[in-house]
Amino acid sequence: MGAGPGDPGLLTCRAVELLKSAEVVVYDRPSMADIVAIADSAEVVHCVGKAGSRPAWPQADVNQLLVELGRAGREVVRLKAGDAFVVSRGGEEAVALAAAGVPFDVVPGISAAIAAPALAGIPVMVRQVATTLTVIAGNDDPEYHQHVDWDAVARVGGTIVVLTGRSALRDIAAKLMAGGLAADTPVAAISAASRPHQRTELGTLAKLPNPRMRPPVTFVIGEVAALDLLAAAPPTTEPKATDAPPAAQVADGQEAGGQFAGAPEQDMGGQAVRGRLAGEPAANERGAGGLGEAGRAVDGQLSGPVEGFNAHS
Amino acid sequence: MGAGPGDPGLLTCRAVELLKSAEVVVYDRPSMADIVAIADSAEVVHCVGKAGSRPAWPQADVNQLLVELGRAGREVVRLKAGDAFVVSRGGEEAVALAAAGVPFDVVPGISAAIAAPALAGIPVMVRQVATTLTVIAGNDDPEYHQHVDWDAVARVGGTIVVLTGRSALRDIAAKLMAGGLAADTPVAAISAASRPHQRTELGTLAKLPNPRMRPPVTFVIGEVAALDLLAAAPPTTEPKATDAPPAAQVADGQEAGGQFAGAPEQDMGGQAVRGRLAGEPAANERGAGGLGEAGRAVDGQLSGPVEGFNAHS
Repeated sequence: MGAGPGDPGLLTCRAVELLKSAEVVVYDRPSMADIVAIADSAEVVHCVGKAGSRPAWPQADVNQLLVELGRAGREVVRLKAGDAFVVSRGGEEAVALAAAGVPFDVVPGISAAIAAPALAGIPVMVRQVATTLTVIAGNDDPEYHQHVDWDAVARVGGTIVVLTGRSALRDIAAKLMAGGLAADTPVAAISAASRPHQRTELGTLAKLPNPRMRPPVTFVIGEVAALDLLAAAPPTTEPKATDAPPAAQVADGQEAGGQFAGAPEQDMGGQAVRGRLAGEPAANERGAGGLGEAGRAVDGQLSGPVEGFNAHS
Repeated sequence: MGAGPGDPGLLTCRAVELLKSAEVVVYDRPSMADIVAIADSAEVVHCVGKAGSRPAWPQADVNQLLVELGRAGREVVRLKAGDAFVVSRGGEEAVALAAAGVPFDVVPGISAAIAAPALAGIPVMVRQVATTLTVIAGNDDPEYHQHVDWDAVARVGGTIVVLTGRSALRDIAAKLMAGGLAADTPVAAISAASRPHQRTELGTLAKLPNPRMRPPVTFVIGEVAALDLLAAAPPTTEPKATDAPPAAQVADGQEAGGQFAGAPEQDMGGQAVRGRLAGEPAANERGAGGLGEAGRAVDGQLSGPVEGFNAHS
């Protein structure tokens, strides 16, 4: 079951219903505690991911646990961050259950690949700007079937979303530029999407956003990354205080805890949005703490007409 | 706001909450009526999409309506199928609102691009099989910024999901094969995902699934399309009766009404899942009405190890 990006409000109704009737919950991240708490009738909860200094369970052990719980006839909810089948090992777990003949349902979740950009005001697909969305697992897992053909990804262009690729981003950017993407292609990094400490940093392939952001980080590469919609029209909800530590205090790959409820914080610096960036945007930053350079003017043009897009704001 | 693929159970909690307090709802499809009905305090609902013989509103008019409603200070929910920013004009509407200085929030929804495959038992990403997911708007909208580089998409490989591309599928398949994808690359077509009349048909690039399925149809191209997990381990929920007309009675592009609630129907033909298809799968069909050839054996191997995947089922 997909748990969405973190905010319990982004759980599906089906997910909440199933959590409430679960006997056992298996989940990955200590930061999911608020969501796991919805399962108030669960007798057992297993955190099988990395927790503090304890490493994550080997995937084979997780698979085996799920098969055993299923065979025992327990009502099990297997919570995965985002959607269980996007850059996640949910597919492997489903394969293991299928191979063992254990019945299961699949409940889709809100994937950060789409939602993190959306919550940062970035539509991953806009007819006039991007009609393809390529989602890529950016880390270098030795069990990957094949290495990503970054030349071809660059040629496809459109919107490219990189998940789990924080440490590899510099290398990925170099490969995309070698494949033909312009050095000034906009890049947005969204940290902790949907959580109170959500923040966005902007840059380009040549001048990447600060990689020292609190995980999880979703990277958006392509012209849509410059469509900074929420900066022009701030969200109607109030930002809330956050207990988030500075990003630099969080080590790469470490999952931080924190409060989930509430709207993501957004900088309300009155930026004007008129279209895609005509040139190279300044490396920029929005989000918790107001550390960003507010007031960046985003000016430029779309190649095709977008109604209302060139109107004065 | 994304309304998900159709089943109200796949709305987010936030979406339900906002619907319940909405004064005005603007939506696209008559088939969303069950979801619109959640907005029981709404004074006005606008269906701006195609309804019966009435054509859809021009996009500029929809944008203008939203701007006017926003300026009037109404609590407006703009419902979009799936996610508002995936193969949808939600991005343009957000751009129009931003340009007009009208505040708005973005509520992500479950996109059919990921959920339709998941509900059909197809994980779009599995480390050992596919580490990229390319989502493509398959129709030939003249306002598209650029034409899709299908050669490059073929080179990226992995999982390719085509939305709104039913009428163009044959042409797309030819381009992908010309770009290097094997003729026996599995293709799954999922119709009406999450609705009681959901059905899946299987084929290959050379022998496409029957295109005369009830819309909306999501196409999955790539090895994962043969990972027919739910066939081996049937879902725990009972299939329900459907009032769906035969697919052949539904014209291309026409949105059919119907009941949303309940689990998708699944064929329980006892198929064995052991891995990806080693050869070309028979064009096959699963779903409502039991018209499919049950008992297809899915045999083969993964290039990398997947725990439990090669176990006997």
